[in-house]
Amino acid sequence: MEIEFTQWLAENLPPCDQQYLGIGDDAAILTGVATRGAVVTTDTLTDGVDFIAAKVPPNAIGHKALGVNLSDLAAMAAKPTAAVVSLVLPKQGAAGLPALDFAITIYEGLVPLAIEFGVSIVGGDTNTWEGPLVISVTAIGEVTEHGPLLRSGAQPGDVMLITGTLGGSILKKHLVVEPRCREALLLNERYELHAGIDISDGLSLDASRLAQASGCGIALDLPTIPIAEDAVRRSARSGRDAIEHALNDGEDFELLLAVPPESAERILTEQPLDIPLTKIGHCVSETGLWQVQKDELKPLKPGGYLH
Amino acid sequence: MEIEFTQWLAENLPPCDQQYLGIGDDAAILTGVATRGAVVTTDTLTDGVDFIAAKVPPNAIGHKALGVNLSDLAAMAAKPTAAVVSLVLPKQGAAGLPALDFAITIYEGLVPLAIEFGVSIVGGDTNTWEGPLVISVTAIGEVTEHGPLLRSGAQPGDVMLITGTLGGSILKKHLVVEPRCREALLLNERYELHAGIDISDGLSLDASRLAQASGCGIALDLPTIPIAEDAVRRSARSGRDAIEHALNDGEDFELLLAVPPESAERILTEQPLDIPLTKIGHCVSETGLWQVQKDELKPLKPGGYLH
Repeated sequence: MEIEFTQWLAENLPPCDQQYLGIGDDAAILTGVATRGAVVTTDTLTDGVDFIAAKVPPNAIGHKALGVNLSDLAAMAAKPTAAVVSLVLPKQGAAGLPALDFAITIYEGLVPLAIEFGVSIVGGDTNTWEGPLVISVTAIGEVTEHGPLLRSGAQPGDVMLITGTLGGSILKKHLVVEPRCREALLLNERYELHAGIDISDGLSLDASRLAQASGCGIALDLPTIPIAEDAVRRSARSGRDAIEHALNDGEDFELLLAVPPESAERILTEQPLDIPLTKIGHCVSETGLWQVQKDELKPLKPGGYLH
Repeated sequence: MEIEFTQWLAENLPPCDQQYLGIGDDAAILTGVATRGAVVTTDTLTDGVDFIAAKVPPNAIGHKALGVNLSDLAAMAAKPTAAVVSLVLPKQGAAGLPALDFAITIYEGLVPLAIEFGVSIVGGDTNTWEGPLVISVTAIGEVTEHGPLLRSGAQPGDVMLITGTLGGSILKKHLVVEPRCREALLLNERYELHAGIDISDGLSLDASRLAQASGCGIALDLPTIPIAEDAVRRSARSGRDAIEHALNDGEDFELLLAVPPESAERILTEQPLDIPLTKIGHCVSETGLWQVQKDELKPLKPGGYLH
């Protein structure tokens, strides 16, 4: 089926920017991507872990596979440029579709997201086997003139901001990933930011990662954390507090930013995005993850999803 | 096990060139890679298709996964720069090893090849699941000042040259891939080359791909094709002629080059590589794949391995 699929790709992928050599040779060539630095990230999703192929529409799988990679580019404030996509398809197909149709439907979810974010699909690899679906995407972006946003730049005194709302992503958001690329680029262009990370494994775990990379600590003010409606719905079923879902569920794909106070104040006043930006804590010199309780810091255990 | 593995990687991967931001953030940053063009390729290997995890040493799997990608860079005459590696590991481990040791042993095969070819492992993704091993590598290289080598530049009259010998790779060579990067860079620097491809799916199939990309035909002079000793060994068991193995076995990872006649003559005289370069045919204006028989062209059916 590789030949038929390659033909489908040739006819259905959006045309590459002229400066690229895309699918059809041994490799793709990207020019002009790395004047200031090429940003590279890879994420692999597997049936049974990141989605259940028998239960979700195949196009949602394609959307998610590219979306989680774009979310990593957003966390670096990088402009998305290109991606390569590797599929390992069950020989017998899946979701009631033969392998070829299954592959095409996956792409039908991936391509619109690629178009929306200006990503050229410049290559890939398609395999079939007796096992379940694996989809691996490597995305490439560009550092803009405003520089990259790293995990390592947070400083004590920085304000921690979060985009959107958190928790309960398993009900919907983990599949319909909305990578915060535009948001990250806009914020990085207009304001001074110190550090950033995307929330993939849960706010508490990802905040502790940012803190560790920066050599400082992060104190979260739990009552200020914006809880998603789906976290409340999950809470009603799980018996756990909604805040626990917001702290630990993961796959929110929101941005956690460490921002110097003056810059944070401007951002919070101006609210320049279509989604809310909320102050949820601050950086402290004591390393580790903390919660603010009556003006004191108490240790907070990272409880996100560990692979 | 992701945490232990990340720690092992931090301690055991060769240090990145200073210009890179490697593992540890949401993405890697490569600078200076794409002055003339960044070359990107991806290949995914799966247990049961590309190797049998229960039967081959795990380090051979790591070597092969990077090697096949470097072979694609060689086919573009690109200088290898960086790679990202995605592992999907069986939860219970494989090859008699727990998952963590299995993953480390895979890397112990991959890292020496990375060092040999100056490739920085700048990122990756590690997952565990109930299924068999999947390893996906995306390699990035640079176009040199001598330009990229494409599949599409062959012209009628060009001489077809092949590096090394062909056939029987299943006995050994498909695992101990020796990507022809240095060879491709040297040839591309010193001689005029028109087109190139690496032999991954068999000489006949890959030659027909090069011909198709170039809009011409390729006529192979079968008796001149250099047959590997392992092709002869295979032939003794398979009952098929050794030349059939040389034409169709695949995974030789040798380079097939279309070279203008004067340039080919120089290459054949000077033999500038440690491995032989052999003239095995020429480009013709009639599209398709042909064999030369008594100065006539007869159609040759591509019989390589089709995924």
